[in-house]
Amino acid sequence: MTDFFKGIPAIAYEGPETENEFAFRHYNPNEVIMGKPLKDHLRFACAYWHSFAWPGGDPFGGQTFERPWFGDTMALARLKADVAFEMFEILGVPFFCFHDADVRPEGSTFAENARVLEEMTDYFAEKMAATGIKLLWGTANLFSHRRFMAGAATNPDPEVFAFAAATIKSCMDATHKLGGQNYVLWGGREGYETLLNTDLARERQQAGRMLQMVVEYKHKIGFDGTILIEPKPQEPTKHQYDYDVATVYGFLKDFGLEKEVKVNIEQGHAILAGHSFEHELALAASLGIFGSIDMNRNDYQSGWDTDQFPNNAPEVALAYYEILRAGGFTTGGTNFDAKLRRQSLDPEDLILAHVGAMDTCAAGLKAAAAMLADGKLEAARHARYAGWDSADGAAVLGADLESLEARVRAENINPEPRSGRQERLENLVNRYL
Amino acid sequence: MTDFFKGIPAIAYEGPETENEFAFRHYNPNEVIMGKPLKDHLRFACAYWHSFAWPGGDPFGGQTFERPWFGDTMALARLKADVAFEMFEILGVPFFCFHDADVRPEGSTFAENARVLEEMTDYFAEKMAATGIKLLWGTANLFSHRRFMAGAATNPDPEVFAFAAATIKSCMDATHKLGGQNYVLWGGREGYETLLNTDLARERQQAGRMLQMVVEYKHKIGFDGTILIEPKPQEPTKHQYDYDVATVYGFLKDFGLEKEVKVNIEQGHAILAGHSFEHELALAASLGIFGSIDMNRNDYQSGWDTDQFPNNAPEVALAYYEILRAGGFTTGGTNFDAKLRRQSLDPEDLILAHVGAMDTCAAGLKAAAAMLADGKLEAARHARYAGWDSADGAAVLGADLESLEARVRAENINPEPRSGRQERLENLVNRYL
Amino acid sequence: MTDFFKGIPAIAYEGPETENEFAFRHYNPNEVIMGKPLKDHLRFACAYWHSFAWPGGDPFGGQTFERPWFGDTMALARLKADVAFEMFEILGVPFFCFHDADVRPEGSTFAENARVLEEMTDYFAEKMAATGIKLLWGTANLFSHRRFMAGAATNPDPEVFAFAAATIKSCMDATHKLGGQNYVLWGGREGYETLLNTDLARERQQAGRMLQMVVEYKHKIGFDGTILIEPKPQEPTKHQYDYDVATVYGFLKDFGLEKEVKVNIEQGHAILAGHSFEHELALAASLGIFGSIDMNRNDYQSGWDTDQFPNNAPEVALAYYEILRAGGFTTGGTNFDAKLRRQSLDPEDLILAHVGAMDTCAAGLKAAAAMLADGKLEAARHARYAGWDSADGAAVLGADLESLEARVRAENINPEPRSGRQERLENLVNRYL
Amino acid sequence: MTDFFKGIPAIAYEGPETENEFAFRHYNPNEVIMGKPLKDHLRFACAYWHSFAWPGGDPFGGQTFERPWFGDTMALARLKADVAFEMFEILGVPFFCFHDADVRPEGSTFAENARVLEEMTDYFAEKMAATGIKLLWGTANLFSHRRFMAGAATNPDPEVFAFAAATIKSCMDATHKLGGQNYVLWGGREGYETLLNTDLARERQQAGRMLQMVVEYKHKIGFDGTILIEPKPQEPTKHQYDYDVATVYGFLKDFGLEKEVKVNIEQGHAILAGHSFEHELALAASLGIFGSIDMNRNDYQSGWDTDQFPNNAPEVALAYYEILRAGGFTTGGTNFDAKLRRQSLDPEDLILAHVGAMDTCAAGLKAAAAMLADGKLEAARHARYAGWDSADGAAVLGADLESLEARVRAENINPEPRSGRQERLENLVNRYL
Repeated sequence: MTDFFKGIPAIAYEGPETENEFAFRHYNPNEVIMGKPLKDHLRFACAYWHSFAWPGGDPFGGQTFERPWFGDTMALARLKADVAFEMFEILGVPFFCFHDADVRPEGSTFAENARVLEEMTDYFAEKMAATGIKLLWGTANLFSHRRFMAGAATNPDPEVFAFAAATIKSCMDATHKLGGQNYVLWGGREGYETLLNTDLARERQQAGRMLQMVVEYKHKIGFDGTILIEPKPQEPTKHQYDYDVATVYGFLKDFGLEKEVKVNIEQGHAILAGHSFEHELALAASLGIFGSIDMNRNDYQSGWDTDQFPNNAPEVALAYYEILRAGGFTTGGTNFDAKLRRQSLDPEDLILAHVGAMDTCAAGLKAAAAMLADGKLEAARHARYAGWDSADGAAVLGADLESLEARVRAENINPEPRSGRQERLENLVNRYL
Repeated sequence: MTDFFKGIPAIAYEGPETENEFAFRHYNPNEVIMGKPLKDHLRFACAYWHSFAWPGGDPFGGQTFERPWFGDTMALARLKADVAFEMFEILGVPFFCFHDADVRPEGSTFAENARVLEEMTDYFAEKMAATGIKLLWGTANLFSHRRFMAGAATNPDPEVFAFAAATIKSCMDATHKLGGQNYVLWGGREGYETLLNTDLARERQQAGRMLQMVVEYKHKIGFDGTILIEPKPQEPTKHQYDYDVATVYGFLKDFGLEKEVKVNIEQGHAILAGHSFEHELALAASLGIFGSIDMNRNDYQSGWDTDQFPNNAPEVALAYYEILRAGGFTTGGTNFDAKLRRQSLDPEDLILAHVGAMDTCAAGLKAAAAMLADGKLEAARHARYAGWDSADGAAVLGADLESLEARVRAENINPEPRSGRQERLENLVNRYL
Repeated sequence: MTDFFKGIPAIAYEGPETENEFAFRHYNPNEVIMGKPLKDHLRFACAYWHSFAWPGGDPFGGQTFERPWFGDTMALARLKADVAFEMFEILGVPFFCFHDADVRPEGSTFAENARVLEEMTDYFAEKMAATGIKLLWGTANLFSHRRFMAGAATNPDPEVFAFAAATIKSCMDATHKLGGQNYVLWGGREGYETLLNTDLARERQQAGRMLQMVVEYKHKIGFDGTILIEPKPQEPTKHQYDYDVATVYGFLKDFGLEKEVKVNIEQGHAILAGHSFEHELALAASLGIFGSIDMNRNDYQSGWDTDQFPNNAPEVALAYYEILRAGGFTTGGTNFDAKLRRQSLDPEDLILAHVGAMDTCAAGLKAAAAMLADGKLEAARHARYAGWDSADGAAVLGADLESLEARVRAENINPEPRSGRQERLENLVNRYL
Repeated sequence: MTDFFKGIPAIAYEGPETENEFAFRHYNPNEVIMGKPLKDHLRFACAYWHSFAWPGGDPFGGQTFERPWFGDTMALARLKADVAFEMFEILGVPFFCFHDADVRPEGSTFAENARVLEEMTDYFAEKMAATGIKLLWGTANLFSHRRFMAGAATNPDPEVFAFAAATIKSCMDATHKLGGQNYVLWGGREGYETLLNTDLARERQQAGRMLQMVVEYKHKIGFDGTILIEPKPQEPTKHQYDYDVATVYGFLKDFGLEKEVKVNIEQGHAILAGHSFEHELALAASLGIFGSIDMNRNDYQSGWDTDQFPNNAPEVALAYYEILRAGGFTTGGTNFDAKLRRQSLDPEDLILAHVGAMDTCAAGLKAAAAMLADGKLEAARHARYAGWDSADGAAVLGADLESLEARVRAENINPEPRSGRQERLENLVNRYL
C-alpha cells in the first residue's frame, strides 16, 4: 500500500440519507434493476490519464498537482500504477482505461516505448489478476508528441503514418493481452489547422486505410473486443475529421466498416459539435453503431473541452434512457474521461469527484430504468407515429410522387397538425427524478 | 414597367475607381477569366423569397417593408413577378430561384395551390422568354405552413408526407417546365424540437424514402437538372437531419443516392454548424457531391441565421478558390439567399445590396483565379505531401500494421516534424487580394 | 366562464407520488419554508404575451396556434383577458405581467392606443378585484411596431423618442393604477444592427436620459414599485445596450441611477451573454441591484432566445440559492417569460407547461432553502476566505504596493495554494436535490 | 549576432507588386497619412511571450518548438533577449512588450525573481539604447504559477494578494525604468471556476483595492504612462471579472478610477465575449477609456483564444477606423499578442507571420484613413441623427414624460421609419479597400 490515499476508506453504499461524504448515496452496485445488477448496467471505468498523468496545466498556467509519482522513470510508473489500482479498489470500479503514454515513461524510439509498455502491462496484468479489475479499453496516444503535430494517420509524412501504425499495433497487442473489451481510436490530431496546407481528400483516404488496417489486425490476432472511434469536432485542431456521430457514420460507410466499428461518445464532444449528448446516443443507436460512453460534461458557457465530472442527474438520466432503449451496453461502459479542476489539489478531491459522478450516474440510470419500465414515454412516442403502422401508412412509403399527388387530389388530403406535447413529456420525465 | 425602381438605372461595369453607387466596380460580366466569361463562372441568381416575399419581420417585430405587391391575390402575385424581373434586369443576373409559396397566393387546398402555381409559372415562362433570364433552381416551401410544423417527409402523420410529396411533384414539374437547372430540397422542418417525442430512426427512413421518390421522379420525367440537398444544422428546429455536408453524405450513402444527389452549401449554415464555408465546399468536392452555393453570410456574433449579403472579399475568395479547384460550377451557381436588413426600407437598398454582393463575389473569384493560375499555393500543398507520391509512400498504404511495425523497428523510423507554414500561406493568399 | 379550458380542473398540490398530470407534485403554496409560505417565496407570475398573444410563429413559419381570441377588436381583447384570468386561477398564480400591446388592439395613433389600453386596464382592475390576482409588473412594447425598428429611446429620430416616452408614461400610469409592484424596461430595439450607421455615444445618452425621465415620473406620481431593467445581449438587434448585469450597472452608475433602478434577470438572456443564470443573480446581488427574475430557459444548443419553461430542478436550485442568499424577493417575483413550443397546440399544453415549471421552481427553491438552512456550503465558503477576516488580512487591503513588497521580502512570503474543493461542493449541493 | 535568423534580411517596403516574401507590400513606415508617418499611427509592438517564451504546447500536446534559448538560466535568458531584439530590428518595429516571467528564469522566492528581473531589464536597457527600440508596456504574469491558481488580487488567501502586489510593484518599477509608455493588467486568474466556493462581492473589492494601489503607486513614482486593463470574458477561468469593456467601465466607476485607467482591447477577447472588435473599440472611445490594442484574431469557429496573427484587411480597417475616429493612439499602440501556429516551426515563420500582420494592419489603417478623409461615412451618420441637432431634438432630451406625452397627443406625432441603409454603407466601406 502507498500512503497517497491514507485514511480514505473503501466507499460503500449508505443510501440517500447518509451525510458521509465518503459513501455512495445512489450507487448500490448489486442492486438489481431491470434484471441486472446496477454495476453491470453502468460498467464504470476510471481514466488513467486525467487522474494520474495530468499535471493540472491549462493554456495559461502550468502544473498545480504535485504527485509523488510524477517523473519519467519506471519506478515512478510503477508507483503510479500502485496508486491507480488503490483508487480503483477504493471506488469499487470494475474497469479502467489507458493510453500507452499514460502508463510508461516516454522513450526516444519506438522500440524503447514498446518495451516499457510491455513491462508496464505485465505489471498491470498482475494487479488485474489480484484485484479482479478489468480493462474496458486501451488506446494509443497519437497526439501529444510533436511528431504527431500534423496528424498520425493523416500526416503529410508517410513515416509518421508508419510510426502511428506501429504504435497502434503495440497498443492493440497490450489491450488484447490484458483482455480489454474494446479498443478506442481518438484522432486528436486527425484534422487540420488551415485548409491552405491541407489535402482533405488524401488525408481522408489515409484515415480510412489506417482504420481498415486496425480492423484487419483485430481479426488476425483474434481480438474479440469492439473497435471504437471517438468523435470530436475540434480541439486540439481547428477541425477534426471525426466531427460527430453522423460524420463518423458516413466515413465508416465509405470504407465499408459500418459493421466493424462503433462509436465511443462523450458528452463534452457532443456539446462542442452543437448536439445534445442524448442526440448523439440516439443517432448512434439508430445507425447501429453505438458502443460506449465517456461520461463527463462540458461547461455550457465555455467553448472548449472542460472534461468535468457529471453532476446533473436529470441530464444523465436522458443519456442512460437512450442507452437502455438501445439495449444497454454490451462491450462498452461508462468511462469517466473527466479531470479534477486544477485547483482540486487533495487526494480526497480525486476520490470524491468519482464518488459524486458515480452517484449521479446511478441516480440517472435508475430514473431512466423506471421511465422505461413504466412505458408511458414510449407509449406516447408510439401513439404519435401510429398512422405509419397502419396499412395506409405503409402504402405511403411504398408509393411514388405521382400516386401520392393523385391521392392528395382525389381525397383532398389537408392534414391538421396535432400537438407535439413537449412540455407534458418533459413533466413526465421529471416524475421519475 | 412598374414604377417601383423608377429612376434606378441598369447597373453597368465602370471599374474600381468609379464613385457611382449604381455601378459595378469589379463585376465585368464578359471579362474572360481562365478562359470563361466572369458571368459564366459566377452564375449569379437572385432569391425570390427574401427580396420579394419577406415582410421584414423578426421574432420580436412585424412587417417593416411596405411593398405594393404584398397581399394574397393573383394580381399582386403578377405585380410581384413584374418587379422581380425588373430587378433581375437592372442587375443583369442570368438566373433566379423560387419556392412555390413565394410566387403564388396561398390556397386552402393542394389543388388550388397547384393551379395557381401553374398559372404563375406560365407567367414566368413568358418573362423568361422575353428577358433571357433563366431558372437556377426551384424548390417547395415545406416549412412555413402549420401543417408542416412537425416535419414534411419526417412528419409523424403519413398524410403530411403525402401532401409534401404532392407539393414536391408540383414544384419539380414547375422547375422542369421552366428549364430549371437544379431542384433543391431544404428541410427546414425535417428535424425535431425534442427527442422525447421523436422516433429518429423512423424519421430518417421517411426522409430517405422521400429522397428516393424525388430521384425516381426526376428520371421518370427526364429532368436533367441536379437534385440538391441544402444542409443546415438547426433553426427553425432544434436539430435538423441535414446537419452539414458530412451528415448528408452518410445519409446519401445509406440510401444509395450519393451518385444522384449533390449539396447546395450556404455560408451561414456552415457557420451555424461550426464549420467555415470553405471547409464545407472542400469536403463536398472531395466526396464528389458539390453542387451549388447560397452566397450569403451570417454575422459571426449572432447565433442564428442572419442571411446577410456578402461583403468580405478575402473570405469570399477562399470559397471560390475551393470551387475553382473543384472545377467550378456545372449546373450550380451563386444564389444570393440573402435578405436586406429589416431597416433597409428603400428600393435602392434592394438594388445596391445586390450590387455590393456581386462586386464582392467578382473580386473574390478574380483573386481565387489568380491564385490558382499562379499555382504557388497548390505547389506548396503538393510539396507537403510529396512523400506519399513516392513508391515508399504508396507502400505504406498498401501495408498492414505488422509490416509497418517491423519496418519502424528495422529502420528505427523516428520522424521529425516539418513546419506547416500556415502564416506564410496566409500571406501568399493576401497577395492576390 | 369561457370554454377554452373546459374540463381542466384547478391545480392542487397532491405530493411527489401523484400520477395526476393536473396536480402539483412539489408546489404546495402554503407550505412554510424558512418562515414563509412557498407562494410568498416564489411569487409566481404568468406572462400575458407568450401565453395569450403569441401566434406560434418563428422565422421560418407562421401561426400554428388558433385561439378564439386572435384578432384586433376590443371584444376579442376582452375574451383574451377572460381566458387569461381563467388560467391564472386554474394555476393559482398570485401575479401576472403584461405589455400594452399584449392586451389591447393596435391602434393607428398614440391617442387611440392609450384610450384602448385604459379601457382594458379598467377591465383588468375588475378581474383583479374579483380574483385577488395582482400585477407583478407592467411594461411597454417598444419593439414590435415598425416605428421602433431603429430603437425607441435610442432612435435617430427624436419624434420616436417622444412617442416612446408617451407610451412609457401610459404604461406606467396603467401599472400604477393596477397596483403593479414593479415597472420593467426591456430595450429590444435599444441596440444596433451595424456600427456603420450608429452613434453609440449619442444613443447611450438618449437611453440614459429616458431612464432618468422614468425615475422622475415614478417619484412624481408616487409609484412605489421598483423600476427594473432587463438585460439582454442581442436578438432582435445584433448588439443591445443592456447587454448583461455588469453592463447595466456601469450604465446606471454613469447616470446616477444605481440606487433607483434594479435588474430583472432572465436565464435565457444570461446564457446568450455567456453567463450562467446564477452568475447574473450573484453579481446583481453583490452590486445591490437585484430585483426580479424571468424564469425561463434557453436551449444550450441553440443560439437564440428559445424561452422554454424551466424543467431542470438542480439548475433552478442554484438560481434560487443566490436569490435566498440575497434575502429573497422584495417587490420582485418569478415570472414565466416562457412560451409553449409552437407544436404544443392544445389548451392542456398551456396549463401543464406552467404546472411543470411551477413544480420545478418549487423543488428548486426547497432544495436551495435546505442548503442554506444546513449552512455547510456557506461555512465552506467562509472558511476559504477566513484569512481575510483576520487582522493581517485587513491590513493587506489597507496597505500599499511598497509596504506589501517590503513585507513579502521581510517575511519571505511564498504562499502554498489550497484545494478549491469544487467537486466536493458539487457533491454537497446534490445532497439537497 | 546570434545565428537564429541567419540569412533573413531586414524587411523593407517594396510595394504591393513585390513577390518577395521578405518585404512589406503595404507598410511603408515613413509614408505620411493624415499628417503623420504610418509608423506613428500604428505604433507596432511585438509580444515577447508568444514569440520567445511559448514552447508550442496546447491542451493535448507538448512542446513543438525547439529554440536554442529554452531553459531556465540567465545565460539563456540573455540569448533569448539577443534573438528578440534581432527580430525587432529585422521587422523594424518601434516597440516591444513583456511580462516579468517571459524574460527572466523563474526563481523560488519573490526576492530572487525581483533580482533576476532587475538584471534582465538592465540588459534590456542597453539593447534599447543601442537600437532605439522602446517599451510599449510591461506587465506582471500573475497567472502561470500555481500560487496564483485561485487568483492574484482576488485570491482567498491575503498572502497571495501581498505576493501579487509585490510582483506588480517590481514590474511597474521595471516598466518605469525602461521608459515604458503604459503598464497593463490582465487578470487571467481574476475570476472563478465555480460560484460554489466564490465570494464574488469580496473578490470584487479586492480587485478594486489592488487597482487603486496601482494607481497610487504610479503617481508616487511619477510614472506618466497609462494604466491599462485588458478585458477578457473567460479562459483560463470559467468567468473573469474583467469580462468586457462595459464591465470594466462599471468597475472603474465603482472604484472612482474611470479617469485613471483605460483599456487594452484584444480582438480575440472581444469575440469570446460576443462582441465585434470594433464594438469594443467604439464603446471604449465613447466612454473615454480607450487606450491600446492587442491586434490578433481568434478563429470564428473555435471557442477558445487562438491568438492568431491578423490577416483580414477589411476587418482590420473597421478597427482602425474606430481608433482614428477616436483620435488615434496616444500612449497606446498595436501590439501583436499573437502566436505562431504550433506547427510553424521555422525561424522564417516567426518573421513572416509578423510581416503579414504588419502589412494587413497598414492596409487596414490606410483604408480607414481614406474613409475618414473622404467623410462620406461620417456624413451619412450625422445625417441620420440630424433631428437631434435641431432645437426640437434638444428640447426632447430636456423634457419629461408628461410633456412629451402631451406633445405627442397635441401634434399627433406618428413617426415614419427611415431606411438604415446598412448595405449601402457596407458598399461604401468596400470602396476604400
